Amino acid sequence: MAVSSLVQCHVGWCGLTLQRWQMNCQNRTLAAWTSATAQWTYKQNRHAEQLRMSKVRPSILWRAGPLGRRALHTSFASSQEVMLTSERYGVQRLPFSHVSDSDLAFFERIIPGGVITDPEELKPFNVDWLQSVRGSSKLLLRPQTTAEVSEILRYSNERNLAVNPQGGNTGLVGGSVPVFDEIILSTALMNQVISFDSVSGILVCQAGCILENLNRYLEELDFIMPLDLGAKGSCHIGGNVATNAGGLRLLRYGSLRGTVLGLEVVLANGSVLNCLASLRKDNTGYDLKQLFIGSEGTLGVITAVCILCPRKPMAVNLAFLGCQSFSQILETFTTCKRMLGEILSAYEFMDDRCMKLVVSHLKLSNPVTESPFFILIETSGSNSTHDQEKLNNFLECVMASGLVTDGTVATDDKKIKTLWALRERITEALTYDGYVFKYDISLPVEKLYDLVIDTRVRLGRSAKNVVGYGHLGDGNLHLNITAESYSHSLLDAIEPFVYEWTAKYSGSISAEHGLGFKKKHYIQYSKPWEAVLLMQQFKAMLDPKGILNPYKTLPSSS
Amino acid sequence: MAVSSLVQCHVGWCGLTLQRWQMNCQNRTLAAWTSATAQWTYKQNRHAEQLRMSKVRPSILWRAGPLGRRALHTSFASSQEVMLTSERYGVQRLPFSHVSDSDLAFFERIIPGGVITDPEELKPFNVDWLQSVRGSSKLLLRPQTTAEVSEILRYSNERNLAVNPQGGNTGLVGGSVPVFDEIILSTALMNQVISFDSVSGILVCQAGCILENLNRYLEELDFIMPLDLGAKGSCHIGGNVATNAGGLRLLRYGSLRGTVLGLEVVLANGSVLNCLASLRKDNTGYDLKQLFIGSEGTLGVITAVCILCPRKPMAVNLAFLGCQSFSQILETFTTCKRMLGEILSAYEFMDDRCMKLVVSHLKLSNPVTESPFFILIETSGSNSTHDQEKLNNFLECVMASGLVTDGTVATDDKKIKTLWALRERITEALTYDGYVFKYDISLPVEKLYDLVIDTRVRLGRSAKNVVGYGHLGDGNLHLNITAESYSHSLLDAIEPFVYEWTAKYSGSISAEHGLGFKKKHYIQYSKPWEAVLLMQQFKAMLDPKGILNPYKTLPSSS
Repeated sequence: MAVSSLVQCHVGWCGLTLQRWQMNCQNRTLAAWTSATAQWTYKQNRHAEQLRMSKVRPSILWRAGPLGRRALHTSFASSQEVMLTSERYGVQRLPFSHVSDSDLAFFERIIPGGVITDPEELKPFNVDWLQSVRGSSKLLLRPQTTAEVSEILRYSNERNLAVNPQGGNTGLVGGSVPVFDEIILSTALMNQVISFDSVSGILVCQAGCILENLNRYLEELDFIMPLDLGAKGSCHIGGNVATNAGGLRLLRYGSLRGTVLGLEVVLANGSVLNCLASLRKDNTGYDLKQLFIGSEGTLGVITAVCILCPRKPMAVNLAFLGCQSFSQILETFTTCKRMLGEILSAYEFMDDRCMKLVVSHLKLSNPVTESPFFILIETSGSNSTHDQEKLNNFLECVMASGLVTDGTVATDDKKIKTLWALRERITEALTYDGYVFKYDISLPVEKLYDLVIDTRVRLGRSAKNVVGYGHLGDGNLHLNITAESYSHSLLDAIEPFVYEWTAKYSGSISAEHGLGFKKKHYIQYSKPWEAVLLMQQFKAMLDPKGILNPYKTLPSSS
Repeated sequence: MAVSSLVQCHVGWCGLTLQRWQMNCQNRTLAAWTSATAQWTYKQNRHAEQLRMSKVRPSILWRAGPLGRRALHTSFASSQEVMLTSERYGVQRLPFSHVSDSDLAFFERIIPGGVITDPEELKPFNVDWLQSVRGSSKLLLRPQTTAEVSEILRYSNERNLAVNPQGGNTGLVGGSVPVFDEIILSTALMNQVISFDSVSGILVCQAGCILENLNRYLEELDFIMPLDLGAKGSCHIGGNVATNAGGLRLLRYGSLRGTVLGLEVVLANGSVLNCLASLRKDNTGYDLKQLFIGSEGTLGVITAVCILCPRKPMAVNLAFLGCQSFSQILETFTTCKRMLGEILSAYEFMDDRCMKLVVSHLKLSNPVTESPFFILIETSGSNSTHDQEKLNNFLECVMASGLVTDGTVATDDKKIKTLWALRERITEALTYDGYVFKYDISLPVEKLYDLVIDTRVRLGRSAKNVVGYGHLGDGNLHLNITAESYSHSLLDAIEPFVYEWTAKYSGSISAEHGLGFKKKHYIQYSKPWEAVLLMQQFKAMLDPKGILNPYKTLPSSS
């Protein structure tokens, strides 16, 4: 059992290094460290009980069912119907054509069996994972090849039918579901690996491959995907690229703008743009593929991806630490970068309110003593002895100096996953807390948590919880506000306050989630009007009729 | 003296590890290693003699003089006038306006003292570093601010005056000098660092900062630039970004597409596009800056750059190794990636003909016994003990298995530079060998050297030298062919042969040098026509009159 193994590992590892700790640490910090170990043994039993209990209530699964993540959505949708986006936000439908019987007949000829019109089957594809926006599409298409996507778009463009490309539908800004009756073009059946070269580490695959499946495939070949995120069990690599997903490994392996080497994209008029070169370097003309990375399906449909994959690290270590203040988190980060250097692969933080949510809603156990903040540090390297020595030295240093007051470490895969869950499943825990207002902000790291404090003060009791967590190593804060239900007045209290605050410190109002439907009107807080104008010109050039993912990403140019 | 220190270091380091070598290595490989050490002592004296001799002949300096790299060009130009590009290649001038007296008066008002019309002063700015293309510009403008660049372009666009943006003029494909009488817009006086944040490692600077100066500035703050290349003493960061320069650190820190976080660009009509956000992550709309990275000044003039800089490694080691075959180089690379992992920062190769050129033309010493191939491996890490242990283990492994037959190692900064010079100064050595036909090719690594062999066979005695070297870790070959002088018939024997060969193996005809003037007609060997068409549409949209760096990068759309 995962939790029990984690305890054993933790104790074992501490045992190995205890001698060094005793030599170097102050008694105060050492006591905190060892008491955390003892605490685990108690929690192990409590957690086993909680796990049994948790089976009673429906749990959220990040696994793909036979039809995407339908099981999850259906269970949600049956309990409470999500308000239509068009009604909640008062959006006007653009003058696209409506799908006719002859359209259906055409699509059926192109992709026999891949045309879904059953309203019940369509339900989960019309609602986002957060249950915050809902469209009313009457048609889901599931092509298997690029040629089929090309035919679908060519026809749709001619007929002026709007199309909503959809990957795993795990987006958080309402970008992946229709606003009205757009045709949903799912990449779910485009899930084949095309090639992998084990000398260069270059993977070419179809856009609908699920991130976790790709990672599993690569791990058997001693490689990994250069990105990792909580939704990995459902999200598609095509969607990851279309939204320029960041996630947990960006600190180490960089953004998709560097690791994506090639793309195959079908444009709005159905023409296929093949920029799928499997080369580390290619400076022949403008790098067109970059325009599609992060364009959220508004400029073209990504059908295949070529990506550079790093070797699977031979040693991974995780440290989960308690910290008394945000300034100590920052100082620990500077120390960490200096002492762990090239093996540092993640530096995540969460506040105590996040911890309370994952403990109360998901029945996870907090492995360290209560603290205002928690840090999760991951190292990935090629030599376990060297890595553990570096990590030991670092931990001794931050404990001795009082920067960190408690902590636990894991080296075994299973236990690492259990610790990672505390951070990765915050998003899920929040959905159990009520309606969630989500903000994904880039800021200079020194200012990162001030926004959480100021928002908390501003909202007072009108919010249920105001929590902050995120990828501190990338200057990326996830600010989340929960309430019993959606409320216009609460939204008005949050926006544009959060955006103005962010703009004041030259931050970005969307670090990694994109703009989708919910944030598109706030782009000017992070981009000058000349830039927005240029984006609108690109959109008009590549998709003159605006059929691709309408109502998303950019404010309308009129 | 550098060479003497290198010898001492080499001996010292070998002494330290000799015991381990004796324990683990076969006698054969060990003998080769230690004989290289002895060989150095002899070469030290010979090299000192050669250094004295080398002072007699004019040497090429990569340092910037008061007016860019004028000293170098002047000395060249005085000895032999380079044929005009328009004549050699039979290009027709496009119907741009000619610079008038009233234009000069306008520019003098905008940038008093920054308007240069003296033909002698203009000479070096009209000729590329390779002495292979020459324009006939009569006007050089040297603005200091973005506002000045904006005014210059707004006016030029209105007047239909063509403009050639120029950084350090170190490009290798004729992209940085005019073809006819385009106004040269130099970034040389835009050389200020705007800000540096030592927590995030984010640098913001003007486009005309010289790469080496930036690196020196950062080193004092314990950081480095994420790119490094032979021309670092002259090239401008704006030019690096405009050409998407690769270089020696790409293997470790990734491409500029990942490390450049923001750009400020002046468009053809003079409008300033501020995408200079100093954030690691920003997903608000399309990533416009990417379009300008690698666009070679044809879409806009980059005036400022925001770039993510890594920490200065605490330990750097260099190994220079001899290898008997290219397949052994590949096997050594796989072993190297496995055993050095995260500390590997460069894996370069060169063939014996390159070595002969740097030895004969630049009087550098070959530190290892003659071999058909040489490898240069660099490690950069945060712990010298760990790094040396990793490197030792790796060297023991490749020597014991016979993959590597001779080698030398350096850990001290000065000696590292001396070893790096053997690789970095090949470009320079080639210019002494005659007229150089340069090819910068991306290929699957297994095929990399076959192109050199096939080209050598094809050209026979019509070429003076056919050499291959490059960034093997990135699949990037620099194929260079020298001849006594430029010859149409030799060029016809090389092209399109090299491009067809490259296309056959799905390579890129320009890995990192760009297309510039010389390669633009060959873009179709690496890009489908749909992509080229789209590039032309972008160009037409952003620069409708085509005033920015005309005759470059893209074939004309007519």
